[in-house]
This record gives sequence, structure tokens and C-alpha cells, in this order.
Amino acid sequence: MVIVMKPHATKEEIAGVEELLRSLNLGVHISEGSERTIIGVIGDKRQLAETPLELMAGVDRMVHIVEPYKLAGRAFHPRSTTIQVGSQEIGGSQVVIMAGPCAVENESQLLSTARFLKEQGVTFLRGGAYKPRSSPYSFQGLEEDGLKILAQAREETGLLIITEAVSTRSLEQIAKYADVVQIGARNMQNFSLLQEAGRSKMPVILKRGLSATIEEWLNAAEYIMNEGNYNIILCERGIRTFETYTRNTMDLSSIPAVKELSHLPVIADPSHGTGQWKLVAPMSRAAIAAGADGIMVEVHPNPREALSDGPQSLNFDSFRQLMEEVSKIAGILGREI
Amino acid sequence: MVIVMKPHATKEEIAGVEELLRSLNLGVHISEGSERTIIGVIGDKRQLAETPLELMAGVDRMVHIVEPYKLAGRAFHPRSTTIQVGSQEIGGSQVVIMAGPCAVENESQLLSTARFLKEQGVTFLRGGAYKPRSSPYSFQGLEEDGLKILAQAREETGLLIITEAVSTRSLEQIAKYADVVQIGARNMQNFSLLQEAGRSKMPVILKRGLSATIEEWLNAAEYIMNEGNYNIILCERGIRTFETYTRNTMDLSSIPAVKELSHLPVIADPSHGTGQWKLVAPMSRAAIAAGADGIMVEVHPNPREALSDGPQSLNFDSFRQLMEEVSKIAGILGREI
Amino acid sequence: MVIVMKPHATKEEIAGVEELLRSLNLGVHISEGSERTIIGVIGDKRQLAETPLELMAGVDRMVHIVEPYKLAGRAFHPRSTTIQVGSQEIGGSQVVIMAGPCAVENESQLLSTARFLKEQGVTFLRGGAYKPRSSPYSFQGLEEDGLKILAQAREETGLLIITEAVSTRSLEQIAKYADVVQIGARNMQNFSLLQEAGRSKMPVILKRGLSATIEEWLNAAEYIMNEGNYNIILCERGIRTFETYTRNTMDLSSIPAVKELSHLPVIADPSHGTGQWKLVAPMSRAAIAAGADGIMVEVHPNPREALSDGPQSLNFDSFRQLMEEVSKIAGILGREI
Amino acid sequence: MVIVMKPHATKEEIAGVEELLRSLNLGVHISEGSERTIIGVIGDKRQLAETPLELMAGVDRMVHIVEPYKLAGRAFHPRSTTIQVGSQEIGGSQVVIMAGPCAVENESQLLSTARFLKEQGVTFLRGGAYKPRSSPYSFQGLEEDGLKILAQAREETGLLIITEAVSTRSLEQIAKYADVVQIGARNMQNFSLLQEAGRSKMPVILKRGLSATIEEWLNAAEYIMNEGNYNIILCERGIRTFETYTRNTMDLSSIPAVKELSHLPVIADPSHGTGQWKLVAPMSRAAIAAGADGIMVEVHPNPREALSDGPQSLNFDSFRQLMEEVSKIAGILGREI
Repeated sequence: MVIVMKPHATKEEIAGVEELLRSLNLGVHISEGSERTIIGVIGDKRQLAETPLELMAGVDRMVHIVEPYKLAGRAFHPRSTTIQVGSQEIGGSQVVIMAGPCAVENESQLLSTARFLKEQGVTFLRGGAYKPRSSPYSFQGLEEDGLKILAQAREETGLLIITEAVSTRSLEQIAKYADVVQIGARNMQNFSLLQEAGRSKMPVILKRGLSATIEEWLNAAEYIMNEGNYNIILCERGIRTFETYTRNTMDLSSIPAVKELSHLPVIADPSHGTGQWKLVAPMSRAAIAAGADGIMVEVHPNPREALSDGPQSLNFDSFRQLMEEVSKIAGILGREI
Repeated sequence: MVIVMKPHATKEEIAGVEELLRSLNLGVHISEGSERTIIGVIGDKRQLAETPLELMAGVDRMVHIVEPYKLAGRAFHPRSTTIQVGSQEIGGSQVVIMAGPCAVENESQLLSTARFLKEQGVTFLRGGAYKPRSSPYSFQGLEEDGLKILAQAREETGLLIITEAVSTRSLEQIAKYADVVQIGARNMQNFSLLQEAGRSKMPVILKRGLSATIEEWLNAAEYIMNEGNYNIILCERGIRTFETYTRNTMDLSSIPAVKELSHLPVIADPSHGTGQWKLVAPMSRAAIAAGADGIMVEVHPNPREALSDGPQSLNFDSFRQLMEEVSKIAGILGREI
Repeated sequence: MVIVMKPHATKEEIAGVEELLRSLNLGVHISEGSERTIIGVIGDKRQLAETPLELMAGVDRMVHIVEPYKLAGRAFHPRSTTIQVGSQEIGGSQVVIMAGPCAVENESQLLSTARFLKEQGVTFLRGGAYKPRSSPYSFQGLEEDGLKILAQAREETGLLIITEAVSTRSLEQIAKYADVVQIGARNMQNFSLLQEAGRSKMPVILKRGLSATIEEWLNAAEYIMNEGNYNIILCERGIRTFETYTRNTMDLSSIPAVKELSHLPVIADPSHGTGQWKLVAPMSRAAIAAGADGIMVEVHPNPREALSDGPQSLNFDSFRQLMEEVSKIAGILGREI
Repeated sequence: MVIVMKPHATKEEIAGVEELLRSLNLGVHISEGSERTIIGVIGDKRQLAETPLELMAGVDRMVHIVEPYKLAGRAFHPRSTTIQVGSQEIGGSQVVIMAGPCAVENESQLLSTARFLKEQGVTFLRGGAYKPRSSPYSFQGLEEDGLKILAQAREETGLLIITEAVSTRSLEQIAKYADVVQIGARNMQNFSLLQEAGRSKMPVILKRGLSATIEEWLNAAEYIMNEGNYNIILCERGIRTFETYTRNTMDLSSIPAVKELSHLPVIADPSHGTGQWKLVAPMSRAAIAAGADGIMVEVHPNPREALSDGPQSLNFDSFRQLMEEVSKIAGILGREI
């Protein structure tokens, strides 16, 4: 951490800051510049986070140097992490395809989708049983009945199940039925839920919040890891910007950025990222070309009748074509699907 | 292009719009809907882009159709709502001042602050017992012990207590000790928590999410109201933008905007809105000048030693001066403090 | 400037950076932290701006400490600047009201507005002769004919004239007819135009760009000042965010922020800032309460027929009421209108 | 709610939408416009929110009406445009690679880069002679001397020259020396410059503004086309968001989006889009995978010594590897480099 003093800070003000730092057993390096003095702080700054040095006489501002996420960061874990789910590995040489409807609507919708995906070589089935919706009047999901249908699909097809938790209560239910729990964008800073997910040990897909910086996203992972659960897959799903043509703005540069900053695997969700089915295939190709460890795609037997997010779902034909395209892209990067 | 008329637009007003459109050689299709009349316009609308139809008698707006929030919206509840908390009323002629430290740290810190605020004529004490923090390594609050200290301050001073819930579990605890529960920006779309708050009947301060549109904010209020709790105070606390000089960007225009769209009271939090104590006084004055029903301000006996958000907290002297300034602004608008 | 080294930077890498800095005659302060080494740089860093130290072995990133705007910054000009235009002063004890139609449309529209504003005690008339419009098919302004009508209004009423330049050519024309030239948000980083305005010596209203940070805005002022023109009035007019209810999001906190960072006067334009005439009065009050040195407001004798920006223009009645309200707010802050 | 049908929607398709609406007990008003048919929907549309009408045959989209750009839009120019520059075609089956230093610094820097790029099979050389810089104290380019060096590089290598205009004056100079003129992000709404570029007939690379919506970007193209110059190549170079880890946020979804809305070719600039050379290769691959007609990449013989934007420039080795990777991606999409 560096403390930047004001242009005309006095000797006494500088000494005051130094004294405080030394009283906290921190090392101090003072550099007198031509216009300002800056003070470098050395040692365990955790307690300093609670001391608003900005308020001291003569202090202009603080500049943080070291990133706050220790467990999620690559600095102390240089080797990339792979997450094992059943017989599948995420973050290894394989590019993982996760697909399924936005919401579980009924048995026939889910099972027909699951059978189709199985045929296509997909290994993870996604489907929402608990749906976070902006309006209370939108379809909220089948809840435990939905989880049962998902479990049935797993039994029949062997697909691994991913579904979203929206509360600690739903998380407990999900643990009984699913293989991977998803924490959605709107709950990325629901810290109680993160801690609960950390205690559960289930693999977690952690979606990036609508307005979360990469640092906040990795801090959210840190919450889960701090409770002992290291099985985290990060998922870029678009951020909120001024552009309204797409539902969100997919920040694909976050994929190689996260790969550099963190050892955790990262996937992309072009369905929520764009909100338009026509953009799903190009953005799926792009995500994998950018280095994503997988994609999560909405597929529906009849998108026109979907109870949620129909406009961004692929039908079976479009999905089949997508699989062909992304397999080739993965191949170029020395990976398979 | 579609023109949406006001719910009770007269035949004459509709005819006026039609006449103008026809005078511009535009075709007109009038649809009398169940709630409103909408007017479709046919032809080259280029010149219409220069004609602000929104200003015509009876015209509400262009293009957008019936908003999704029915209970929170003013359309069907034209009269402004006032919320009664103890002997205090929010949303009436009084501008309410809510103040206190970001986090309850210990008895002496809270009680000294409470006594000071009481003397200043403040009626609501705010203080966090459960703290949502970006990093798991930051101070997380005293939890139930903090609630007990808040209750003690109420007993001694008579101040009404506001504190934040971060989960359904904390909400239950808070109901035992506090008068108003706050739902923070990061939980604005934690729909389980909203529903639980809706069932609790406690007055709720609903902060705007970091990247929530006004419509999403009102939809979040709708979630609470849909469970039967109509005691909601909206709170503008800054949104996330590209500007990094301030912690957030306070969108003060949301205050008059919400006043038009909704019947609910709306307050402002310039401490979180700006993140800098020097900006708190000017933005408090501005918020009240813009029509806010109150402000929520962080005050700390010694901001330099605060365990969270010190740099944005006022000390007692600055708060005293703030009270003088905002009282005068309120007076000009025909309100008192 | 501070150079942050990577966690495992070697002694040789650190020495390499030090050597380069010393070869540029810069002072060096090395602080070895517990996790990383940081290097403080002392001296004239101008040439360093051209040397991408980020690419050197072992370097993680740079942190800039000193703000780049020397002429616009308050650090070396602690006293607030006032700008004299004719008999009027901007940035002094008076809060200046600038008003008029978005675009000059014809003689009668402008003169009737000017006469009305004169009666209301307004001293500056604004009106666009050159209009930057998103679409080439929108009304582009009367150009020199518009300037002549503005000059006529000045002759008749004595109002000082403000109008926008959109190119160096229009700037030359404007210098012949107007008192203050405006550089609009879309041209805030049109550096050729800024330099030309710097050479012209006319007082300049410099609007903040749609996505300009406060630092970039002050750097744009620096471009003008660097050519010798110090007569700059900054104008907050809303920034672009995800919120679409308002045309832009007025960042009123930029007003006290700029007052701290710079000695230049700052005004607010709530008409463009909100895009809705109903929000103009509350945001005008708020801007002045936040410390603005003036406001610029769109007024039109008949907003419904305005050739541009009608929905955000006040009619005469609304403007009269606005003047009453803002006079009272200014009074409270010890200023007059 | 309004449903906008495709321009050539058949009677049967319109009847299909009408039938569906009536089956939901919704009223229907069909308006056959001069260009398209729009369908107004009457009744309780809540359930309609769950029915993605956008997917029905003949339906284009909901709510929004005829876009303002007629010449740039695909509606009336369904066939994709290819731009001929010398012997090269942009927008055809070839993916075009444009490369070179951010700024022309001197003869040896530019010529060594040009020779290297020529060997790599690149056909377009980019280099700035006029540089728009945020601060007046940064290197502003060699101006006409830079153009002469670029012309020399063309003579020696046969590479086609791209360089940026920052004013009408620089545009005139550029027309004498270069093959393609670039209009930068900061000038995307410098309408005078756009019109001048429209009159010049030179091929134009039009970069997307930092906070420009796709619609505004296409409107800017419309300005140029409206003056008679149809040779426009759009360039996505990142937009401004809250994320600060990258210099900008590349909106790669704009590439397939523009391909749908417009007939103009679109390329991507991952150097400015990310600001970090390590992210250039993954984002180049991603851009081409998303359907870009080309990429523009900064290359410098010694990025550490570059006078501007060194941190985002590739050195020769990294560029060589990039060429291999993007060639393979292009191949998969049935294109060559």
C-alpha cells in the first residue's frame, strides 16, 4: 500500500502518518518527490484496512498495490486448477459444453432436451428450478419439482446436473439432487449465500455480477474458498453497459484476464451475455477462441414457447451446428470437446 | 411509432393528437386498450422526431407500454404514500434525517453518537450489525451483539433504529431489535430476501442496486409489496459508472423521477453515494433541493478510527454544520426537519 | 509515479528498472514490501510518459500519483478563478443563469425568448446556430444566419451571447458575433478544436464529454489553457450510464469535486443532463445547492414546436417559477442571482 | 406493445402472428405502413412477455420502429458491401490484417516494421502521424513528416497505408499520402469531420466511439454516406465501462450485431480494445471467430521504446505467432488471410 501526501503536506503531517504506521508494527518507506511525498507501507496491512488514513492531516489518498484475493489469485497458486465433477474435468484440455433450457418447465421438455444433448456429446445439463426474475409476476420456477425432473434426466441420460441456488434454503435442496450449483449474477455479492456455498463443498459455477469488476468477482470466489470449498468455475455472462442492443455486453477480454490473475477455470454464457439467439453461435466461437474452458448455452426444444428467455435459446438444429463450429475452434487451440 | 395516452385522456385530447399527426400527412391507428389508448403512427416519421408529442395534452409518452410494477407505480395509486415509524412519518412534510456510524463497533462508539444525534434533533439512528463487505477479510459486523447495542441506544435516547439485513436469518434477528430494516444495494435483487421482508411487515429501506435501472428498483419494491408489506422507503445511493473519482455516481435525477413514477417516499444516501466526506454536505443539500424525503448520513465520533467506511463519515462538527444547511434548504421547499 | 514490481521480481529486474530511471535523470526510491517491491520515481516524468516501463522484465504496473493538469489544477492555483464577460462575472458571488432555446430557429422565436429572459433578470442568452445531431437527417442549425439573429438579440436586449462551435470554421464565425463559445460534449476531445479555442481568447464553456472522467475533462481544459486562453467555464451536462429513463445521468457530485480539484468555475446544464423538462427545475435547484456557479437551461416560447430538444425545454411559465426557486437556494448559500 | 414485421413478411406470416395473439385473448391492430407492417397488441400482455414473438416467421422485433440510418442499414441494401482498396478487398472472403505502430516515430522504426509486416503477408500498414492524446503534454505525432515516412514505406513495400485524421486540415494532408483514412473513437461524432470525409471519397475506417451505441455508430456512418462516400469500414475498438482492468471493454457482440443491421464490413482493434499486449492475441482470435472482416493490430519493433501505447503493442515474435493463430481461425470459417 502506498500513501500519497498532499502537495504541501508539512513535515509534521508526514511524521504523524509515519508514527501511526509504526505503532501498528508496519514498515515505512518515505519518498520525497518533486511535488509530493509518498509513503510505502510494508507488512500485514489487514488491520490498516480498518484505519482510514485518508482522514489524517496532509494525506491525499491511498493506492492499493497488492490484490486482496489470496486463495483465488494465481500469485501463490501458479498452476491452473482443474475441477473434477463425476467423470468430467473442467479446466483441463477439454472444452466443456453445458446446455439445457433456461428453466425446467415440465418432464417432457426437459427429458427431450436431455436426450438430444446426450446424443450431441454434451456432458452437463443445465436447467433452472429456482428462477431469479426482475418482476414478481414472471415465472419463478418449479422449485423442488424441477429438481426432481433434473434428477430424473440424470438417471436416464447420465448427464451431470447444474442448477441455480437463489437462497440458502434452495442451496440445501439442490445439494440433494444436482452435481454443480450455480450462483447467478444477481447473487454474486450475496455474501451469506457465498459462505453457505463454501461450506457445502459442491462444485460452484460463480457467475460474474452485472456490474462486478474482475477484482470483485475474484473476491466473491475468495468468500467461497475461505470457507473451504475450492471447486469454483467462474462464468462470464456479460456486464451492464450503456449499450441496449444486446441484453448485456459480453466482456470476453475477462477470459484471458482471469486466466492471468487466477488459477480457476473460466467459462462463458453467451445466451445471457447477448440475449439474442442469433448472437449465441458467434459469441460461443469467440469465447472458446479467447481461451474459455467451456460454454453454457440455452437450448430449448421449442424456444417460441419457452417460459423464460425464449429469445436467447437455440433450437436443436442451431445447437447441432454450434457444436460443429465450436469443436473446430477448440481443435485449433489444441483442445477437444 | 406508438403514442401512449394518459389513463384518463379525454376524447378531445386523443383527437388533438390525431389531428396533429394527420396534418403531418401521417397515418393514424387508434387502439383503445383496456387501460389506456395507444396511437400507432404510419408514414414517414422523420419530421415527427422534431415534434415533441410528449408535451401534448393527454399524452403520456412514446413507444414504451404499461410498466410492470402495479403496486409501486403511481398510475393506480396517484396519492403519495407516507410511512409511519413510531411517532415519525416518512414522505410527509418533514424531511427525515437518518444518521449514525456505518458499523456498530462497540457500546461507547454507538452511544456517544446516539446522544449527539439526539441533541441535534435527529430521530433515526442507523448502524450496521451485519456488514456486506467485498472481501471476506474485512470487518463483518458484530451481528446480534451489535443489534443489542442498537436496542440499548434506542432505550436510552428514544431514537428509532435502522439496520441492514443480509440474509433471511439476519432479518429475523433484526425484527426483534430494530424499527426499520434496510436492504442494501448488493441485495436489491436478492429476491428471497425481498420476499421475506415482504412477509415481515417491518418498514423497509430499499437501496437502489449498483447497476439497477429505476424500473428494476421499482420492480424490487413490487416484490416486497406483492407479499403484503407496503411500508417501503426507496433510497438512492449512487450507481456504478466509469467515473472512479467518486465511489459511486449519485443519480439525483432518480429522486424527482421516482416521485413521478411511484407513490413511495424516496431518500438519499450521500455517504455511500460519494464515498468522500467532503462531498457529503453538498450532495445532502442537493438531494433535498431535488425533492428527497430524507437523507441517510454516516456520522462517527472519530472517523479516523472507524472500522468501516471512515473516509465517508462526518465527524460531529461537520454533521452539526450539515444540519444547519439542510434545514434551510428544506425550509425553502416548504418542509421542515 | 510509482512502479509496482511483480511478486517474484528478481534483484536483476529491479536493478534494470532503477538503471533506466537513473539514465533519464530521475530520482529513485525503492521500497521492498513483504510481497512486492515498489519503486517511487522523482523528477520530471514527462519523458517517462513515452517509455512503457510496463514492458520491462519484472514490472507489474504503473501507478500515477500526480495529476497531469497543471494549469487547470488547484494545486498550483489555490485561488478560484472568476471569468469576466462584458459586465458579468462567472465564478464569483453571483450564480449565473444562462438560458435560451436549444437552436435558433427564426427571428421571432429568438427575440421573443430574449425579451422574456431579459425581463426575468437573465444576463446570458444561449442558442445554437450550429447543431451537432446524431443523425444527418435532423435539423442542423441556421449557421451564420442564426449567429446574425443572436447578434440582433444582443443589440436589442444587451444579453451576452453563448453559442456552440462544432468546427474550427464555425469557431471563426462565432468569434465575430458571440461573447462566449461553447464546446459541446461530443467535441470535448476534439483536440484540434480545443487548441483553436485556446488561440481565440474568447471565454469558453467546456462541456463534459458523455463518457469523460473528471480527469479527462480537466485535461481538455488544459489543452485550451496550454494555448494561452484561461477563460474557461466547465459545464456538467450528464454522463452516459446504463440508465435510460433520463437522457443522461447528471453527475452532480462532479460539481463539488471539480471545485476541489480545479480553480475554474463550473456550471450545470440540467436540460441536456436529464432530457425531460419536468426534471429541469429539481435538478437546477440541486445543482446550485451542490455549489454550481450557474446553470444553463433551455427555454422555448413553445416547446411543442421546437425544432430540436423540445421535450427538455421549459416554457415561459415554468422558467419564471424556476427563477424564483433557484434565487432562494442561491440566497441560502450566500450568493445572489 | 408493437410487433414490427420484416420488410417482406408474407400475408401468411402476418396472419400467423395475429392468430397467436388472438389465441391469447389479445386484441390486434394491424397497420400496413409504407415500409413495414406493424401490429399493435391490446389487452393484458403479461403472458405475452413469456412468448418470444421475435422468433415467429416474419417477425423482426418488438417495440422499436424504423431505424434512422437508411444508407448504412441492411434493410434496403441486403447484400454485404465489399470495399476495394488498391488490389485488396475488405468485407469479402479474405480476413484483412492491418498492422503497424501506434505512431510513426522515425524512418527506421516505420520501415523496419513495414518490411517485417510485408514478409508476414500483411497488406495494410497503419501508423499515426496525427495523434489525439488526452493530455497536451503527450507526444502529438510527426504530422506531415510522418505522412511522408508512411508514403516512403508504401513505395518500398507496396503496403497500403492507413492513418488517422483529427481535423479537416489533417484530412486534406492525408488524402495526398495515404490509401485509407481513419476516424478515431474520439471523433466519431465530430460531424464536420465526418462530412468532410464523406466529400473526400477516400475509404474510411470509422472507429466506434467510447460511449457510442451501435445505432449512433451506424448514424455516424450515415453522415459520411450521406455526402456520397460509401467506402466505410466499421471498427470495434472497445467501449467505456466501469471495468478498469482493461483500457476499454471490447464489445465483440457488436461484430455479429453490425453484420445483421448493416451491410458494411466491420473489423476489430484488440490493441486499443484491451490496452494490454497479452490480451491482443486471444481477442484477435475471438474477433475473427465472431465474424470480423479483419483486425487492426499495433506492432512495434521495440514496444519498450514506443512513443505511444507501447504496453499494448506486439513485438515481431508475438505478431508472427498471432498470424499463425488467426489464419487457422479464419480457415475454419471458410475464409483466408
